[in-house]
Amino acid sequence: MLWLTLCLSAAAKPAPLPHPPLEETAARLIGAALASPRAWEQLEVLCDDIGHRLAGSAALDRAVAWGLEAMRSDGLQARTEPVSVPVWVRGAESGAIVSPSPTPLHLLALGRSVPTPPGGLQAEVVVVSSFDALAALGESQIRGKIVVYDVPFTTYGETVKYRWSGASEAAKYGAVAVLVRSVTPESLQSPHTGSMGYAEGVTPIPAAAISVEDALTLRRLAARGPVTVRLSLESRVAPDAPSANVIGEVRGRSAPDEVVVVGCHLDSWDVGQGAQDDGAGCVMAMAAGRLIAALPVPPRRTVRVVLFTNEESGLAGGRAYAAAHENERHVALLEADTGAGAPLGWRVEPGGSDDDLRAALAPLAPLAALLAPLGAGALEAAGSGADIGPTVALGFPGLGLMNDMAPYWRIHHTEADTLDKIDPMLLRRNVAVVAATTWWWAEVETPPVLTP
Amino acid sequence: MLWLTLCLSAAAKPAPLPHPPLEETAARLIGAALASPRAWEQLEVLCDDIGHRLAGSAALDRAVAWGLEAMRSDGLQARTEPVSVPVWVRGAESGAIVSPSPTPLHLLALGRSVPTPPGGLQAEVVVVSSFDALAALGESQIRGKIVVYDVPFTTYGETVKYRWSGASEAAKYGAVAVLVRSVTPESLQSPHTGSMGYAEGVTPIPAAAISVEDALTLRRLAARGPVTVRLSLESRVAPDAPSANVIGEVRGRSAPDEVVVVGCHLDSWDVGQGAQDDGAGCVMAMAAGRLIAALPVPPRRTVRVVLFTNEESGLAGGRAYAAAHENERHVALLEADTGAGAPLGWRVEPGGSDDDLRAALAPLAPLAALLAPLGAGALEAAGSGADIGPTVALGFPGLGLMNDMAPYWRIHHTEADTLDKIDPMLLRRNVAVVAATTWWWAEVETPPVLTP
Repeated sequence: MLWLTLCLSAAAKPAPLPHPPLEETAARLIGAALASPRAWEQLEVLCDDIGHRLAGSAALDRAVAWGLEAMRSDGLQARTEPVSVPVWVRGAESGAIVSPSPTPLHLLALGRSVPTPPGGLQAEVVVVSSFDALAALGESQIRGKIVVYDVPFTTYGETVKYRWSGASEAAKYGAVAVLVRSVTPESLQSPHTGSMGYAEGVTPIPAAAISVEDALTLRRLAARGPVTVRLSLESRVAPDAPSANVIGEVRGRSAPDEVVVVGCHLDSWDVGQGAQDDGAGCVMAMAAGRLIAALPVPPRRTVRVVLFTNEESGLAGGRAYAAAHENERHVALLEADTGAGAPLGWRVEPGGSDDDLRAALAPLAPLAALLAPLGAGALEAAGSGADIGPTVALGFPGLGLMNDMAPYWRIHHTEADTLDKIDPMLLRRNVAVVAATTWWWAEVETPPVLTP
Repeated sequence: MLWLTLCLSAAAKPAPLPHPPLEETAARLIGAALASPRAWEQLEVLCDDIGHRLAGSAALDRAVAWGLEAMRSDGLQARTEPVSVPVWVRGAESGAIVSPSPTPLHLLALGRSVPTPPGGLQAEVVVVSSFDALAALGESQIRGKIVVYDVPFTTYGETVKYRWSGASEAAKYGAVAVLVRSVTPESLQSPHTGSMGYAEGVTPIPAAAISVEDALTLRRLAARGPVTVRLSLESRVAPDAPSANVIGEVRGRSAPDEVVVVGCHLDSWDVGQGAQDDGAGCVMAMAAGRLIAALPVPPRRTVRVVLFTNEESGLAGGRAYAAAHENERHVALLEADTGAGAPLGWRVEPGGSDDDLRAALAPLAPLAALLAPLGAGALEAAGSGADIGPTVALGFPGLGLMNDMAPYWRIHHTEADTLDKIDPMLLRRNVAVVAATTWWWAEVETPPVLTP
């Protein structure tokens, strides 16, 4: 019966399929991505059923469980990797102009801000539009006051520094609190929260984002006379909490120890639904894994979807991943964390001089050619992504999905970051770009070395 | 000494100046309007020092006093005319999705809504997108529920009917409350309040506007299963309060009993600053009066600036004016109440058939020619304005300033109707249009009769 057994074995295990060319499979993935409503359906569950999910919240725990289960049912080998995350709780908060005319302020405490003293604080404001203007006023005009940073949005990089460092800079001159104009080009009385930090050695003072409208009102009023503001923030820090990165893999067929990471962050700020930031990126990364897992032949290398935890309020997930996986061969790390506007291409790092960059990006021309029909053929040397950052810093190539950001800033870190802001068809197009790019890195015969 | 006395008299009273042609003075007014920051400065005081000003509020009383004083110091003969206004007080309000996922709603009670029972109410929602859909569901599916009107913005006329009549229509089928998607094409979680009414004979049920985002979330959730919402409105009606229309005049030089009214409404909803609705219109009307009062020769007819009270929550000011002045000869009534976007021209009523309209509008061609260089040469047969409406209904020509409304709807009746939304240069251009038009009607030799 040996012969029969052999025959049955042969029938049960068909001969390996030939590998279609890289481009043929990429085209197939793009077609499948554009046709599938599944990423949207997953995002609907994440937004409407789970909602916003700051580190330390029960909602983030539910999101971790959901991501694990979703990737398993999508055919990936999924697991969690524990991460201890810092916990900051907003608590009740309010503020108002007390004089000359009592008017409520529209504010959100900045993430990790210390609270005000119990009962709140009240002080005159001083309005500045730069750190230079702050320094020019000096301690004599700042001590005991609330500093209002009324800095119009130019680029994120230029204006976010007031959110991040504004409290520390003002504290140096004896300010009792800071109110930071929200980092956005547009506003409908919408405060934008976000992370901040305290420099070593300064007294930590409370910090809140106010709406653009309120910043402008304070500026106008202060130009005409003294303005007093009341502020109450009941934020608190709780002990670190257990959380997890969620990881789903498609094991490589011939070089399983070479890894392509496609990532996003699963946490969000504690307002809105975290639809754009970064629920959309998560369902793109998950879709890339799902579509590649569904191919008849797995890619040469391992594809690893990583839903990072705690990007917004600490980056513990990105750091934990780098520490746990520093010795693995990362061929590339991709991240999607700039919303779901029209995909434009990829930001690629590491960079260097302009000539270096041209040389470094040249090997990616075939990838750009695959994506160009989707409007996403651009390659730009720039920072890739926060979550993959600690691993990219170890010397691996990092790529950040580049989107049309026009719709992004207006809802960034606000109550208005909700599912309705995500265009389902643009989401599909983003999925196509992320899936095809992930595939390309996992299948290309010789992965480019991008270091100049 | 008789001769000397006569001489002195002659010196003290110079010979009347010749009257420059109508167009020459119009050009002078336009130039002065474009050069003057005064309307903006007045709007800053109204917005920042007085703030929003609903009928019955202390702020509206301050606005009345301010308007009177401002017009006097601008050289107009100013007075107030008492008006008794209805008083509705918002009180505390809140709402939330209770299940499937607890989520706060972003809402504002609609003006004149009844409160919920003490402690609020809780019920399942039913989401509809038209009155037809409501009727199709019928009492069996509506009784005891909260009706959510999720009607996308098309035109104000098409969608505002759900705000105005939604409660009455739903009450017919036994609904316990209504939540109305805000009447706006754009949203950043911003609820838009506004007036509503109860039809005769129906049980008045509580009514609130919710943000577009919340309406869409409720729709999505309800498509997947039962959704329960909690609503608490502590609104109340107080006894009518004394208020006033504020009137400032430039007496006509030869036909003082013929009157050109240029109006706006001084009250606002109880959110934001009432900058666009209708602070901007008020400083335009006041500027028209001021600029005409500053001319060396007054116009043929009397120019009457009217700051109407209580447009938003009752129209008592417009009705009181019509009753008090019904026997006067109104040559035309102008109103500015569509914000301070680029001025486009005038809506003119009464109308009629298309041919009637062409004939009716023809005599206004010289006026349109004056305004065309400002981009405001359009004339359209349409409703003119709410405040002047009761007087126009007596048979007088009504004209409503027509503006680019793109920036208008997004902040209409919201917390975001603030001074920063008004472009100071566009405000000047609007002042120029309103002042020149007011002058034209007050000076033109034979005022056109617009009735078809």
